[in-house]
Amino acid sequence: MASMAAAAFASTPSARRRRPPPRLSPSTHLSPPPALCVPRRAADEGGRRRRRHPGLRVRSGLIEPDGGRLSELVVEEPLRRARARESLALPRVKLSRIDLEWVHVLSEGWASPLRGFMRESEFLQTLHFNALRLADGSVVNMSVPIVLAVDDADRHRIGESSKVALFDADDNPVAILSDIEIYKHPKEERIARTWGTTAPGLPYVEEAITNAGNWLIGGDLEVLEPIKYKDGLDRFRLSPANLREEFTRRNADAVFAFQLRNPVHNGHALLMTDTRRRLLEMGYKNPILLLHPLGGFTKADDVPLSWRMKQHEKVLEDGVLDPETTVVSIFPSPMHYAGPTEVQWHAKARINAGANFYIVGRDPAGMGHPVEKRDLYDADHGKKVLSMAPGLERLNILPFKVAAYDKTQGKMAFFDPSRPQDFLFISGTKMRTLAKNKESPPDGFMCPGGWKVLVDYYDSLAPADNGKVPEAVPA
Amino acid sequence: MASMAAAAFASTPSARRRRPPPRLSPSTHLSPPPALCVPRRAADEGGRRRRRHPGLRVRSGLIEPDGGRLSELVVEEPLRRARARESLALPRVKLSRIDLEWVHVLSEGWASPLRGFMRESEFLQTLHFNALRLADGSVVNMSVPIVLAVDDADRHRIGESSKVALFDADDNPVAILSDIEIYKHPKEERIARTWGTTAPGLPYVEEAITNAGNWLIGGDLEVLEPIKYKDGLDRFRLSPANLREEFTRRNADAVFAFQLRNPVHNGHALLMTDTRRRLLEMGYKNPILLLHPLGGFTKADDVPLSWRMKQHEKVLEDGVLDPETTVVSIFPSPMHYAGPTEVQWHAKARINAGANFYIVGRDPAGMGHPVEKRDLYDADHGKKVLSMAPGLERLNILPFKVAAYDKTQGKMAFFDPSRPQDFLFISGTKMRTLAKNKESPPDGFMCPGGWKVLVDYYDSLAPADNGKVPEAVPA
Repeated sequence: MASMAAAAFASTPSARRRRPPPRLSPSTHLSPPPALCVPRRAADEGGRRRRRHPGLRVRSGLIEPDGGRLSELVVEEPLRRARARESLALPRVKLSRIDLEWVHVLSEGWASPLRGFMRESEFLQTLHFNALRLADGSVVNMSVPIVLAVDDADRHRIGESSKVALFDADDNPVAILSDIEIYKHPKEERIARTWGTTAPGLPYVEEAITNAGNWLIGGDLEVLEPIKYKDGLDRFRLSPANLREEFTRRNADAVFAFQLRNPVHNGHALLMTDTRRRLLEMGYKNPILLLHPLGGFTKADDVPLSWRMKQHEKVLEDGVLDPETTVVSIFPSPMHYAGPTEVQWHAKARINAGANFYIVGRDPAGMGHPVEKRDLYDADHGKKVLSMAPGLERLNILPFKVAAYDKTQGKMAFFDPSRPQDFLFISGTKMRTLAKNKESPPDGFMCPGGWKVLVDYYDSLAPADNGKVPEAVPA
Repeated sequence: MASMAAAAFASTPSARRRRPPPRLSPSTHLSPPPALCVPRRAADEGGRRRRRHPGLRVRSGLIEPDGGRLSELVVEEPLRRARARESLALPRVKLSRIDLEWVHVLSEGWASPLRGFMRESEFLQTLHFNALRLADGSVVNMSVPIVLAVDDADRHRIGESSKVALFDADDNPVAILSDIEIYKHPKEERIARTWGTTAPGLPYVEEAITNAGNWLIGGDLEVLEPIKYKDGLDRFRLSPANLREEFTRRNADAVFAFQLRNPVHNGHALLMTDTRRRLLEMGYKNPILLLHPLGGFTKADDVPLSWRMKQHEKVLEDGVLDPETTVVSIFPSPMHYAGPTEVQWHAKARINAGANFYIVGRDPAGMGHPVEKRDLYDADHGKKVLSMAPGLERLNILPFKVAAYDKTQGKMAFFDPSRPQDFLFISGTKMRTLAKNKESPPDGFMCPGGWKVLVDYYDSLAPADNGKVPEAVPA
């Protein structure tokens, strides 16, 4: 067997098994203390100087994390009890669900070299430059603000304390934020510069900004223990260190990441398979696919994570993707739907997980304009901005080739502009409508097992589907 | 005699004359062909490698323009007639007043290394990163989009042509734009990312974006002859090359720029004098002040350029600033009022004019929020963003010290927080109200000659001042 996916889906008879199971067992691979979390090879890289533009011919070693090493912020085991005790005596800040997702993201080093919620200088650089300048003058990409809002009452309660404790919704201590800085939360400016619009109806804004406090609190984060959601999917939530270890174990000489927040159809699979073929042609011996569904906050009409994971499982089972060369894992970030700004974050975080190739689609992280009848972003801006973004020069950007249903072949194929009449484009909306109505898509659009998951999902919603968009349901 | 200001104000008996007049005569200093426009010393610098962070101890030579040399885009004399003829046969685009100001800015190399109106890749980098990456991998600052909008009819008329001619309001050909690229004008996104708000009432937006075309046209600019306004102030419009020549002629070993769009009071003068003192203390032998009022579009309630220039003349005459060490010139850019985004443009353009020190005030390029009762920008963000901006690492940022009227001394002095009761803050609004009512400010706030100009200006408006903000009047 080969992939984390296959490890996770081990009960499925059709999962292909070719190698011994991975060394990371579900019970330990999310919880080692930070010092052990970095696989030796990745840790060694931190010290080595690498060429800034490695080009396509670099064969050995994974891409170095931004800033040279992963910022892993979970307190080491021997200190956890003391830190937890300390947290009880500190002024408290209550975390929302999205705040907790960001604590998770920060704790594992997806945002390396960031070591906590942004202070004002980081926040301003993110808003204005989508990048942070480090002490040595080098630049890393950082396009979305990772900030924690507090209100007037919080601020009053914090007073002159230099530390606060972050508590979850159930009043459990989660983390300590030290050497804090409290500064104004310029909501309008944050929204305008991040989304390029201030129109009402942006999902992340409505969920996490509009009603948030008027202050932001930055500082150094120490997370008391690894973040778990206990939703049956924690075993898929591999940290960048876990992923690096897995890629190293597989002797990957290239890692190509595919971010997604939708069900996988055969067009995606074609693209991923074709990407591997191209990488082999370039001379790589063992390119590994990181199939990396986003696991944090998504808007209400996206298919919830648990159903997407079921769907991905079926796709692997049906052999549409090769488990031997595929790692399926959950990316814990919440979704901004901020198009060209957000796609940089999606790419940067995958560098930290060891990916040196990133597949970028049409209109990445885009959505319809919340007020006007048009897409919020130009469909080509995402890939253009990504290709020019500061701090991402080391990453090889692979633009998405357009796949559509080729009626002459009865399967998904790359669109051939010389015979457009032969192709059928099945949009996300069309796909959802078909699944809701229990209709079948054309043969070869999606593997039958995967399609059935979608139909089941919409079936599960039917009672709530009284004309308005249903809330995402828990697994 | 010493300064361009003094050269310009030569009819004034009190202007101090200590040296022979500058070599640039009013009739020629704006018109030499590009090849001659760059003073030899500045041109030589383009070829030399300089340290990226020259620090404060570099003594000789002016700071290198962004990209290594000034992009001067005025057609050389022998070719002008041919280019003008060519322009008549090309599809035409009509320039607004602000478009023409940008042609002026581009033509003289203030936006070096930009060689014309932005194509989409430059526009996107400006919006997202406030910086452009050059072919050699280096980065220059570029924070405001310098773009030309065209409408559907223009686009239709341009058709497949690779060139267009730009015409002024009087139907005179001004420039040729070659190797053009036409792309969508995402107005909302441009506004949101540049201003950090989309609130109605932003002066530049209302003047130049809201009713502009839905397309942008970029390309290489060739300007048929130097841009002149024939308003009696052209002699003050020194190009970056002119300024570099003047600084070189004066043997400046440091140039400190002061951007302004308001009358100069003695608090400004104190700051500028004090800056020179500090530079001398650092070891510079001959720091020169570039007093650089903005000459392009300003909002209706700002004091118009012609009156400001009269006021600056009086300040020089009264000896408040030393003409020996001061160059007064007009910066031809229009004003965005885009706060932290725009201040980067103001600083970057001055690098191209040879300044290696930039004085940044409180809330630079700021204004009141057009809808809410607050300032649009945090007053400290401008200097913070400027100090972190990509491509401005070579520039020494000098934060503005706060000056106020010290009642115990009867003059403007740096604010002493240990005795706040002794200081009187005279805001711009208060200053304007006093001048409108022909009241006098406290003795020592502004030289009497300068104050009289302000009173005269508001006097000239009186008939139009029927409750609404008057339009700026021509000189």
